[in-house]
Amino acid sequence: MTRPVPLNPHPDRLFPPDPAVRSIARRIYGQIEALPILSPHGHVDARILLDDEPFADPASLLVTPDHYVTRLLHASGVPLAELGVAQGRLSEGQARTAWRALCSNWSVFRGTPVRSWFDTELSAIFGVTERPSAENADALYDQIAECLRDQSFRPRALYRRFNLDVLATTDDPADDLAAHAALRADPAWAGRVIPTFRPDRYLEAARPDWTSALAALSNAADIDTGSYAGYLQALASRRRFFLANGATSSDHSHLDVRTEPLEPAQADRIYRAALAGTASLAESTAFRRHMLFEMARMATEDGLVMTLHPAIRRDHHGPTAAVYGSDTGHDIPIRAEFTRSLQPLLERFGTAAGFQLVLFTTDETVFSREIAPLAGFYPSVYAGAPWWFLDSPEAIRRYRSAVTEIAGFSRTSGFVDDTRAFCSIPARHDLARRVDAGYLAGLVADHRLDEDEAVDTARAMVLDNPRKAFKL
Amino acid sequence: MTRPVPLNPHPDRLFPPDPAVRSIARRIYGQIEALPILSPHGHVDARILLDDEPFADPASLLVTPDHYVTRLLHASGVPLAELGVAQGRLSEGQARTAWRALCSNWSVFRGTPVRSWFDTELSAIFGVTERPSAENADALYDQIAECLRDQSFRPRALYRRFNLDVLATTDDPADDLAAHAALRADPAWAGRVIPTFRPDRYLEAARPDWTSALAALSNAADIDTGSYAGYLQALASRRRFFLANGATSSDHSHLDVRTEPLEPAQADRIYRAALAGTASLAESTAFRRHMLFEMARMATEDGLVMTLHPAIRRDHHGPTAAVYGSDTGHDIPIRAEFTRSLQPLLERFGTAAGFQLVLFTTDETVFSREIAPLAGFYPSVYAGAPWWFLDSPEAIRRYRSAVTEIAGFSRTSGFVDDTRAFCSIPARHDLARRVDAGYLAGLVADHRLDEDEAVDTARAMVLDNPRKAFKL
Amino acid sequence: MTRPVPLNPHPDRLFPPDPAVRSIARRIYGQIEALPILSPHGHVDARILLDDEPFADPASLLVTPDHYVTRLLHASGVPLAELGVAQGRLSEGQARTAWRALCSNWSVFRGTPVRSWFDTELSAIFGVTERPSAENADALYDQIAECLRDQSFRPRALYRRFNLDVLATTDDPADDLAAHAALRADPAWAGRVIPTFRPDRYLEAARPDWTSALAALSNAADIDTGSYAGYLQALASRRRFFLANGATSSDHSHLDVRTEPLEPAQADRIYRAALAGTASLAESTAFRRHMLFEMARMATEDGLVMTLHPAIRRDHHGPTAAVYGSDTGHDIPIRAEFTRSLQPLLERFGTAAGFQLVLFTTDETVFSREIAPLAGFYPSVYAGAPWWFLDSPEAIRRYRSAVTEIAGFSRTSGFVDDTRAFCSIPARHDLARRVDAGYLAGLVADHRLDEDEAVDTARAMVLDNPRKAFKL
Repeated sequence: MTRPVPLNPHPDRLFPPDPAVRSIARRIYGQIEALPILSPHGHVDARILLDDEPFADPASLLVTPDHYVTRLLHASGVPLAELGVAQGRLSEGQARTAWRALCSNWSVFRGTPVRSWFDTELSAIFGVTERPSAENADALYDQIAECLRDQSFRPRALYRRFNLDVLATTDDPADDLAAHAALRADPAWAGRVIPTFRPDRYLEAARPDWTSALAALSNAADIDTGSYAGYLQALASRRRFFLANGATSSDHSHLDVRTEPLEPAQADRIYRAALAGTASLAESTAFRRHMLFEMARMATEDGLVMTLHPAIRRDHHGPTAAVYGSDTGHDIPIRAEFTRSLQPLLERFGTAAGFQLVLFTTDETVFSREIAPLAGFYPSVYAGAPWWFLDSPEAIRRYRSAVTEIAGFSRTSGFVDDTRAFCSIPARHDLARRVDAGYLAGLVADHRLDEDEAVDTARAMVLDNPRKAFKL
Repeated sequence: MTRPVPLNPHPDRLFPPDPAVRSIARRIYGQIEALPILSPHGHVDARILLDDEPFADPASLLVTPDHYVTRLLHASGVPLAELGVAQGRLSEGQARTAWRALCSNWSVFRGTPVRSWFDTELSAIFGVTERPSAENADALYDQIAECLRDQSFRPRALYRRFNLDVLATTDDPADDLAAHAALRADPAWAGRVIPTFRPDRYLEAARPDWTSALAALSNAADIDTGSYAGYLQALASRRRFFLANGATSSDHSHLDVRTEPLEPAQADRIYRAALAGTASLAESTAFRRHMLFEMARMATEDGLVMTLHPAIRRDHHGPTAAVYGSDTGHDIPIRAEFTRSLQPLLERFGTAAGFQLVLFTTDETVFSREIAPLAGFYPSVYAGAPWWFLDSPEAIRRYRSAVTEIAGFSRTSGFVDDTRAFCSIPARHDLARRVDAGYLAGLVADHRLDEDEAVDTARAMVLDNPRKAFKL
Repeated sequence: MTRPVPLNPHPDRLFPPDPAVRSIARRIYGQIEALPILSPHGHVDARILLDDEPFADPASLLVTPDHYVTRLLHASGVPLAELGVAQGRLSEGQARTAWRALCSNWSVFRGTPVRSWFDTELSAIFGVTERPSAENADALYDQIAECLRDQSFRPRALYRRFNLDVLATTDDPADDLAAHAALRADPAWAGRVIPTFRPDRYLEAARPDWTSALAALSNAADIDTGSYAGYLQALASRRRFFLANGATSSDHSHLDVRTEPLEPAQADRIYRAALAGTASLAESTAFRRHMLFEMARMATEDGLVMTLHPAIRRDHHGPTAAVYGSDTGHDIPIRAEFTRSLQPLLERFGTAAGFQLVLFTTDETVFSREIAPLAGFYPSVYAGAPWWFLDSPEAIRRYRSAVTEIAGFSRTSGFVDDTRAFCSIPARHDLARRVDAGYLAGLVADHRLDEDEAVDTARAMVLDNPRKAFKL
């Protein structure tokens, strides 16, 4: 039996190692450490805050739903089933098995942000003081399970403890947003949970579930989607419904961001063909690119901010998707292109009053080549924060290094956690704040910025930029 | 009213923060700080040095013509008209308005090279001692305007003060280079201003102004361009004219750098079709790729160095171009490709005596993947300096990091300012020298290079490399 | 005559400059410095160890065969012939000329890994104490030549001195592996030299030497390759022969890594067309993509690890290849793509027991975008070490920075020297160990990792990871 190793996240973690730069970083971070968290894009379910039930167990809370965690364990040889993925509600035995798999494979997370988040999360939220291992897995399970039984670990209590100011969910256009409405109506609830309009599947006529999606849309909007005109009206109507329920943005994730408007008659023709099941793949793709343009047009009318998250090959491993479903760790990036793809959209709406577009990528090459140059000219364009595979210390540094010299800080969106893992939210934002403080400290240390400017910028990154970019 | 903040660029600015590395950087920089400036590629007008008139006002000098400055102000919500763009000669009111827009939005430049250049420029040239702001905008305007009225701020005086050794302009092949000739003939002028042959529009038969360009070319060369043979002769003749007027290089900026020679009969056929207005876009593109190859062939005969600046989507926002013209901040990079594109050219001329090719990019991915490997084998190829969006501290560091390990220092071109902003030239070169000194200091600090070698290399970057790469 | 400059590689070379980080790096490196070298992929000839003859001369050993060295000298104006390339066995005069070219152009290697390797190699192996230069070239030649005459500089003695644990060669499937067998049978030989199955030319039906290759394959396997079925059997048979001779991996380097299985009948049809010389280029390409898939299928049966090294344009400069042959410094990278290209293969075999795939690239953009995400999900996929143009200090740091945050350390292959330059092997591994120690020290210094974990990880990078990834 090996002696337990202390888990004790250092107060200076993630700051640059040079003592002079570190001192500056510490001072900057000190000014932003305690600011509230704005989370304008993510995947937490509003219902957990409405219901405010205790979380089930450590694995269901921290392992099973988080594909950041399960993917690397899967790569290390642990079957997804053993991690509880797609197993429904876990028995205690199942939950302990999943938790043990995490602790026994703790070493595979070395150098990853998952490890950094866990260090912060386990220590700051659950009071864990030992590095997880095969030996202490059960004891840590017990300790966290004990916490979860306490009132102070209920979702609403954690929302307050996390100092969340706003939390955005991601929702289907046909969703009735009942949980959001009920939350707002609850006098005991003082937080702010807002929906996000995510219409991807309604724009992709080639999807097998497209017609059933249209039926749901028609039903939700109470508008006949049997015609192209009705379809547009139904989408516009649901956007207004989302706005009325607090939404400030729509989110779009397709294979590319090409935006090519069709003539209305042509769009109408393809729409009818798609309904009849006779549209070709090329036609469906053309229709989707047309509709992304239409989403922008609607945005100029209703004011929803448009966020783009493209260039991911979803469900790369079919057999895994067949057994375990989507979002199980094998969505793999491909090359992204923005300059040509967005030109029709930006040509038309790029300087339109109130129109806003936030560009995210998992292809780092576009940061300096395309996104920053676009955000550095168009008043509508914001360079989105590093996303998904890139929301990690060194990737954030690369992003700041690539984007700042071209577009400054003011044209960036502020950090987006984009997570399903509720308890990781403060750790993720804290990591981003530390890394940004370190980056700004570097600019002060090499005399490119005065320290008062660095502090002002750091605060803006946390509060002003997300508020502006997402119209919060 | 806020208290003014001092503007006082630090002597150690842009050096690495570690004290030991910084000391080395300081020593290396000390050996190159005062060396003359070679500017082998840029966009200053020779006429301003010929005429030697006082600059009109601070905004016309420092804001309006510099799309590095105007683009980020535009992104921040300032209309280009308010910055004086395309407004003709500015009234004092207009100039003050533009200047105020800069000062009031000073914070948007945090972390950008524009800010670094301005810090140096305002302080070292104009003696400004306060950080610009809405409050002191008018006072700073007055201070700079006062300077501009002084003899010592005339263009020629500044040329001497900047310690310029050579300044290259960029010129149309039909240009009579009268300003260059008059300057050379002026006994009171001891500087060196050389033209650069920039034939882009003559090679792009699909451009609407192509036939009128040909007429101008014919006229300038006094050669009938009614035939393909005449066209080639006219181009060759103008190249010789440029050489006779001091040019050492031709500059080429197309969407790609593909170089695919056509059979003469095919080239002739397309040329005639293009003259008749019947060439297809594909034919015009093929013709351009053929002509880029022809430019290399001519270079092996007349010795002009060939510089390539590809992969920029010009005038991305049509409505802005329509109102304000080109070069107004919305030229956006796209992916670049050199390995396959240049193979025909390099296969034929890559080891030809005297042939030289300098490769620039705004797509950083090609630095380690294509440009450095090419420059590391072909005696004709030089890795051009970071260009445009990338002529900034961290981008230069990334360039050195990506290129040096593959091609060393000797196969790189030295810094190119490529600017229209005359007063920014010394600040830009100074920034590059500081960053290179810091990079070399890092190699010394981790014992990859001895300090004598670092100093020798730093001097070569400033003097020998541009002289060799551009045949100065 | 200039005074000689000492050559004295610093014990702290390549460590980060910050004193605190450097101390940590020193401690980590101290734990791995003396570990044996595993070289699971390279191009040394097994015969030199079998024959154990003295190396001919300094140039033939250190200059002529190493295209890392000759390419940059060629770019600097030295003809390849003068470096001894393709000149057969060199006379002493030729060897001295080549050696002088290296020493006289020593400065062009500043900042390159070649320089770092030479510093270590010349100093540690040959006891050189002066920086090479035109002045001391002959004296250094004499000094090294003197060494080479000594028993202790024979190949086997150096193998032991280098502390090599295993050395993989790269071999043609038709090779009889006689040298490998003879070595194994030699009671005086205690080392381990293993072959690698490299079938590229057998899979590329468009190559002019394809049919003669098939004849050799048929001959070696004693199986008729006149049919597609026979061809597959012959390849499978040679794979088993390689396995029986110690091979653990097959190596594949094509222009892309697309893997698209054909129907057997279709593959058969193209195979027959190719034999008849009537297959189109498109058909040959489709056949190669099919065969790469087949190689994976065979790997699931026989257990050879599959390594991919794609996206290099070989023999970029035809005239040089015609005179000097291949591998003469002008293989130039192009863009790589893995996500879509490997999907068919990974869909089928990505989670198959025992199947292993190591992905190498010279296109850095795929590290964070494709390779790390794939290695972070598929248990079969390893992120290969930085390769070729990228096996250098800063490129290794970029690799660690891009890959680690997504896939951790455990999903990476460990360092691969991939060299023809026998004496550079310890210097290359030492460089990688120093850089990895420095990277890990950075994680400790910013409190992302505890030092015990960093040491454990550093050891794993040297021993466990290559053993696991290459099944050594």
